[in-house]
Amino acid sequence: MAAARGVVSPLALFGVEALVRPLLGASPHHVHHAPEVVLMDDSAAAALREKPRSSIRLGMEALARAEVSAFVTCGHSGAAMAAAVHCLGTFEGVHRPALVSALPRADGGALVVLDLGASVDCRPDQLATFARLGEAYARCALGVAAPRVGLLSNGEERSKGNAQVKAALPLLDALPIRFVGPVEPHDAFAGAVDVLVCDGFVGNVLLKTVEAALLLGDRPRARPLGGAILLGVRGVVVIGHGRATPDDLRAAVLLAEKVAASGLISTLRAAFAPSA
Amino acid sequence: MAAARGVVSPLALFGVEALVRPLLGASPHHVHHAPEVVLMDDSAAAALREKPRSSIRLGMEALARAEVSAFVTCGHSGAAMAAAVHCLGTFEGVHRPALVSALPRADGGALVVLDLGASVDCRPDQLATFARLGEAYARCALGVAAPRVGLLSNGEERSKGNAQVKAALPLLDALPIRFVGPVEPHDAFAGAVDVLVCDGFVGNVLLKTVEAALLLGDRPRARPLGGAILLGVRGVVVIGHGRATPDDLRAAVLLAEKVAASGLISTLRAAFAPSA
Repeated sequence: MAAARGVVSPLALFGVEALVRPLLGASPHHVHHAPEVVLMDDSAAAALREKPRSSIRLGMEALARAEVSAFVTCGHSGAAMAAAVHCLGTFEGVHRPALVSALPRADGGALVVLDLGASVDCRPDQLATFARLGEAYARCALGVAAPRVGLLSNGEERSKGNAQVKAALPLLDALPIRFVGPVEPHDAFAGAVDVLVCDGFVGNVLLKTVEAALLLGDRPRARPLGGAILLGVRGVVVIGHGRATPDDLRAAVLLAEKVAASGLISTLRAAFAPSA
Repeated sequence: MAAARGVVSPLALFGVEALVRPLLGASPHHVHHAPEVVLMDDSAAAALREKPRSSIRLGMEALARAEVSAFVTCGHSGAAMAAAVHCLGTFEGVHRPALVSALPRADGGALVVLDLGASVDCRPDQLATFARLGEAYARCALGVAAPRVGLLSNGEERSKGNAQVKAALPLLDALPIRFVGPVEPHDAFAGAVDVLVCDGFVGNVLLKTVEAALLLGDRPRARPLGGAILLGVRGVVVIGHGRATPDDLRAAVLLAEKVAASGLISTLRAAFAPSA
């Protein structure tokens, strides 16, 4: 239970009881028996359809019923996303949720990056939705007063960018947020923006390149993540790494606790409410 | 002339003579007067059309006439690419050239990455062409006996990847090279492949993220690049960074010298010859 150190909320654990219980010792945490196990080579759709008593599904249902304030999983991320959309639903106008995380900036600040891999083929309007979600996240969960939002590109000139970036630019211009335009990775990590918006394919490559480059730089333990927030669903869901260490898992639980207390979900509910 | 230290070939310099000559001191290098200057906000097309006596254009023409063995520029990269295609031509079947560079791997080897930004919207068949170009580069210029080639993706499973990656996979499978499949940045930088193929938008983001992350890792001087080779045109062209230091420029000249001596161009000419 190293993962529970510093966590103030009572924990509800979902899993195969015979496996989970012995790990708890005298800890008072409640165990919800989940007899079905989603395997890493299950498809997300099949897991959702055929394993309704998996820990992922039962946890997401408890969150939908507000029996828990947040749900953390280091299991099959595709299955977790599918279950989140199914059990919690998305906010009005959110086509698909995004994975978001705050990476360290060179100036000591945090760079909120999304999508980190939930949607690998994004339409331009999805990038605009990500901008709204990320801006709200930086404001509520990280306390940034007026977050500067940039669109990841291969140059800061508006004439650069691929077809997707060029199509998204006018949509981001039109949003009631502090959109600063296209931004390069170097400037984003140096502190030019608080929120970096990108397609899930590019975001996943960027995240994994940061991890790889930190490894090159002889800082193998400087992993940027406790876990990623699944943003756009009606509840706080944290998806951790499949190879999470106990410390990583603890960071993920602390992140979930912080976001649940931040009022992010009600802010998003209001921001994405159908206009009256 | 710090940039010429260690360079064994005689240098031919292209530029505004009144500006270049005073920098040379007693150095015996030949100066070709290029009275027109391509500015950073010129479009590549306009530079090609309207400034035929720029250093970029005159240098590329000297290369096309084999008066020089390689051409290095730190000027307008779009104009340099346009002039290279115009003056040198591309190999048979190469739709557009690619920018390629070797980045440091964690295992001490070199990771050849392309495209680094020449083509930001690639068709799947262009990715297959990049695989052939990169493989030949690793073999000839870096001396890797049987280069392992990977396609950059968000997971090593063939079910992952965006639409572009999924469409390119069967094309790369069919090539007579050692294609190992989709590869994540982490594994590529750890040493799983010698050549990493990607779209120019993604490659440019990856390159600039490595630079940014090395900065985060407190190694601000660990810049991976002397310059990038423009691969696919019929001559050795090195495009350096617009903010190159004298050391960077020297590295670019040494790279050009090495590639010119490697036999890469004749290998590519044979590899891309129309089949008999």
